[in-house]
Amino acid sequence: MALFITFEGGEGTGKTTQVQILVERLQQTGQSVIALREPGGTPLGDYLRVWLKSENQPLTPEAELLLFAAARAELVRTVIQPALASGTHVVLDRYADSTTVYQGYGRGLPMAQVRAANAVASAGLRPDVTFLLDAPLDVTLGRALGREDDGGRRFEDEALAFHRRVRAGFRRLAKRNPERWMTVNAAENSDVVHETIWKRIQGLLTA
Amino acid sequence: MALFITFEGGEGTGKTTQVQILVERLQQTGQSVIALREPGGTPLGDYLRVWLKSENQPLTPEAELLLFAAARAELVRTVIQPALASGTHVVLDRYADSTTVYQGYGRGLPMAQVRAANAVASAGLRPDVTFLLDAPLDVTLGRALGREDDGGRRFEDEALAFHRRVRAGFRRLAKRNPERWMTVNAAENSDVVHETIWKRIQGLLTA
Repeated sequence: MALFITFEGGEGTGKTTQVQILVERLQQTGQSVIALREPGGTPLGDYLRVWLKSENQPLTPEAELLLFAAARAELVRTVIQPALASGTHVVLDRYADSTTVYQGYGRGLPMAQVRAANAVASAGLRPDVTFLLDAPLDVTLGRALGREDDGGRRFEDEALAFHRRVRAGFRRLAKRNPERWMTVNAAENSDVVHETIWKRIQGLLTA
Repeated sequence: MALFITFEGGEGTGKTTQVQILVERLQQTGQSVIALREPGGTPLGDYLRVWLKSENQPLTPEAELLLFAAARAELVRTVIQPALASGTHVVLDRYADSTTVYQGYGRGLPMAQVRAANAVASAGLRPDVTFLLDAPLDVTLGRALGREDDGGRRFEDEALAFHRRVRAGFRRLAKRNPERWMTVNAAENSDVVHETIWKRIQGLLTA
């Protein structure tokens, strides 16, 4: 049976790298797999990504919530569900849990609104396993800063508080549902992180 | 107190014309007023309108629901609420009721999903009055067809059934909440329609 695998975590936790390594490993073992990221993966998702990733465009938190949900609704129905139905594993960089954490815990939107948007978007589709890449903020934000063009932008107090809420939010979700979530120490090097993930995937593939 | 006035109805019922005549009349009597349409009226709304109005872009009904809601969330918070707070009347061409009718009755999405999306988008803001411009489909679709470039596109059976559900849906909403809704015979000429609307507005302005 095809697996629906999601990666969650804050900025700079190495999700993109781990998705890539996992997909290559699955392909090497002869498995059919696609890698996707949110928002994106569909014509609509790519169109919305332009707006969501631009720091100059005005956007209320409620509209942001609904845009992420719209991109997800399209991705689930036109890409993820058909892939899983045809026996292809799906590895996704961020899913509904990111909405719960960023828009709920991060921006402070009412959780009832967040749940409602997620429910419309996800069509009831839940991941088989979700890897939380978790590390202290001085590690992860240092990495994220390393990707900035100016190389030295300082996080404001407000932004730092936001990232603290995000990390705590992810850890809370993982703790609440340990059957689905696996928390991985993202401060380790990427090969070590991958081996931890791969053991869990192997267990699911042979289950 | 500033009024929040919405116009609803199917294609070709004359909403755009009536919004324009009403806004001019209000301005002539010295009232401060803005006219808006959905989706639009904000940078995000205009960006989403491009996608929503293009017939060639793929779009699931759920994503469509969430895009309209995102555009509305932005419009309500950044334009409508501030305008009303400053004493400016707002006249809006389509609002949450269009979502209920088009995505709910028209596309057949579960009403719980439609209500949830509307609740996030509208921030609890309800119109003071909603005018339903209503006329038989042979009148309204004839007008809508008159706007087509090819001048003679025929409605398919499926499209006709859709428009029937839309008209019936609007009439049902109007019947259910007669305090807010006023149904106007849109088959009359536009001056007659306007005078009916204007009487109701005068009543609200002097209340």
